[in-house]
Amino acid sequence: MVESRQSMVDLRNVFRNKNVMVTGGLGFIGSNLARYLVEYGANVLLVDSLIPDYGGNMANVEDIKDVVRINIADVRTRSTMNHLVQGQDYIFNLAGQVSHIDSMADPYTDLEINCHSQLSILEACRNNNPTVKVVFASTRQIYGVPEYLPVDERHLLRPTDVNGINKMAGEWYHIVYNNVYGIKATSLRLTNTYGPRQLVKHNRQGFVGWLIRQAIDGEEIKIFGTGQQRRDFTYVDDAVLAFLLAASSDDVNGQVYNLGGPEIVSLLQFVEMLIDLCPQASYRVVPFPEDRKRIDIGDYYGSFEKIKETLGWEPVVGLREGLSRTVEYLLANKERYWT
Amino acid sequence: MVESRQSMVDLRNVFRNKNVMVTGGLGFIGSNLARYLVEYGANVLLVDSLIPDYGGNMANVEDIKDVVRINIADVRTRSTMNHLVQGQDYIFNLAGQVSHIDSMADPYTDLEINCHSQLSILEACRNNNPTVKVVFASTRQIYGVPEYLPVDERHLLRPTDVNGINKMAGEWYHIVYNNVYGIKATSLRLTNTYGPRQLVKHNRQGFVGWLIRQAIDGEEIKIFGTGQQRRDFTYVDDAVLAFLLAASSDDVNGQVYNLGGPEIVSLLQFVEMLIDLCPQASYRVVPFPEDRKRIDIGDYYGSFEKIKETLGWEPVVGLREGLSRTVEYLLANKERYWT
Repeated sequence: MVESRQSMVDLRNVFRNKNVMVTGGLGFIGSNLARYLVEYGANVLLVDSLIPDYGGNMANVEDIKDVVRINIADVRTRSTMNHLVQGQDYIFNLAGQVSHIDSMADPYTDLEINCHSQLSILEACRNNNPTVKVVFASTRQIYGVPEYLPVDERHLLRPTDVNGINKMAGEWYHIVYNNVYGIKATSLRLTNTYGPRQLVKHNRQGFVGWLIRQAIDGEEIKIFGTGQQRRDFTYVDDAVLAFLLAASSDDVNGQVYNLGGPEIVSLLQFVEMLIDLCPQASYRVVPFPEDRKRIDIGDYYGSFEKIKETLGWEPVVGLREGLSRTVEYLLANKERYWT
Repeated sequence: MVESRQSMVDLRNVFRNKNVMVTGGLGFIGSNLARYLVEYGANVLLVDSLIPDYGGNMANVEDIKDVVRINIADVRTRSTMNHLVQGQDYIFNLAGQVSHIDSMADPYTDLEINCHSQLSILEACRNNNPTVKVVFASTRQIYGVPEYLPVDERHLLRPTDVNGINKMAGEWYHIVYNNVYGIKATSLRLTNTYGPRQLVKHNRQGFVGWLIRQAIDGEEIKIFGTGQQRRDFTYVDDAVLAFLLAASSDDVNGQVYNLGGPEIVSLLQFVEMLIDLCPQASYRVVPFPEDRKRIDIGDYYGSFEKIKETLGWEPVVGLREGLSRTVEYLLANKERYWT
């Protein structure tokens, strides 16, 4: 399954018969991660709230639902987390509210999901399982508007919306619990991640899924601004490998790492690749809507040198190949993802 | 009252007949600020929860209580904040939980006070008073362990405890509401602030007040570590002037500024100055207690060049002079501050 055979062999030894919990386990990245963990022989517990529109989807685990344990619960609930963390060797902490737009409309809920819940999980670990290893899903969004490119981990954090602020806090709870209480924790700052099982139901979780859906639907895609904004994209299998490698190494405890993509492309190029795959679609460049422009960050691409140096991770699935797999998956499973 | 006559004249024009709300207005810095605002002819509303041990103290406003309006309320309460912000020209947002130690013992309460409440205030402004100017009290604590000295605003934020993380988030809510919604907001990153009306009831709000109390009580002061840790100290009148100047200028909107002290001293030197003022006290250097050591940051002093350049602010009250005024005030008002 993974691209690097060497990694796969090592990871099999790491996770075989280990107890592994994935929060947000029915979501896009969580469910892809779960599939690898099953393959590697782990005892997998998927925790998900299935809050509508957040990304959790039973269809994501259709093929593995009999070989994982699924526990529907809200990570904000302290008593639940106190129980669930017990006996886990690894926690992949991916539960979150990821919509920038929702965070501005309802900052309190974003605070609860992205801050209160992270404290619930970390306090549960501190009190009930202090030897667990936690890998947290952070986001490049906390950097805000880049001062220089590629953005490395030395770049100041200057989030541009409430979601970015709360994700920043969520990440730092992990670092502080690592440093103060010895709860082994690492944070990965994800950039645009895409692939099979991505949420394409609505357009409030970033632009990538929505563009893919529009292309598959044969629509005229509206590109905001000039289309020249450059971005990086990580195929989900590459992102999953980063999580697995980060879990496997104590060298990364207390550290934060950017992920990144194998190539930097403009939004226009991204859309053109999509239209190559879905020739019935088209595009048009239109002015930025005011509410989007206010929280847009312009060009962004990250340096993944730090994680490459420490863990040997680098993204290997090219954008054209990754998009092809994504479109193929979604076409084959359309009824499960469109509504 | 203020040290700079020029500033005083200008500030009188700024605040005369203006409606000014101070959250945490019965606390140490809030009450000192209130006294200046009264002097400058403002209509002053002090909002404070008087939560025990947080720093709010009716004794702090004994001499001005008939010329200000006092509203006891919790800034977490959205309906209350929605009402109170209406008609205010300026909000000095100083309410907060400032104990590092309490934040580790009860991270949820710290989250509510330092994050949820800031959202309550900013949402109230957005919905009910979008033209108000807000000055937020942040802290040097969010920098964590300095990578270089003096620490300027380009230094990465790497908080070392939950309180630091939540204060960082609280600051950034202000910046985002400034940038996205045009709620004029500025954040001042305070360093060790000291002076009359400081909390000296307990030792959970930083070391400065507690050292002063021990000196006045004629105790043997325990200095943790080597005593060579260097710090900077801002006398409260200097800090107040920074708040007033920041409120008065639109050049600072969306910006963060360090405050600082007129001199850098070691803890040992600080204690020696105190003992000069309270000769019955003494000191002894002892090893760091484990719980303190884990969240200690070593040397810290900040650069205040940025605020000096923009607003002309610099600290003018020397440490010896400031400590002398502080000890004198506390000796004269001991019964109001000791229990």
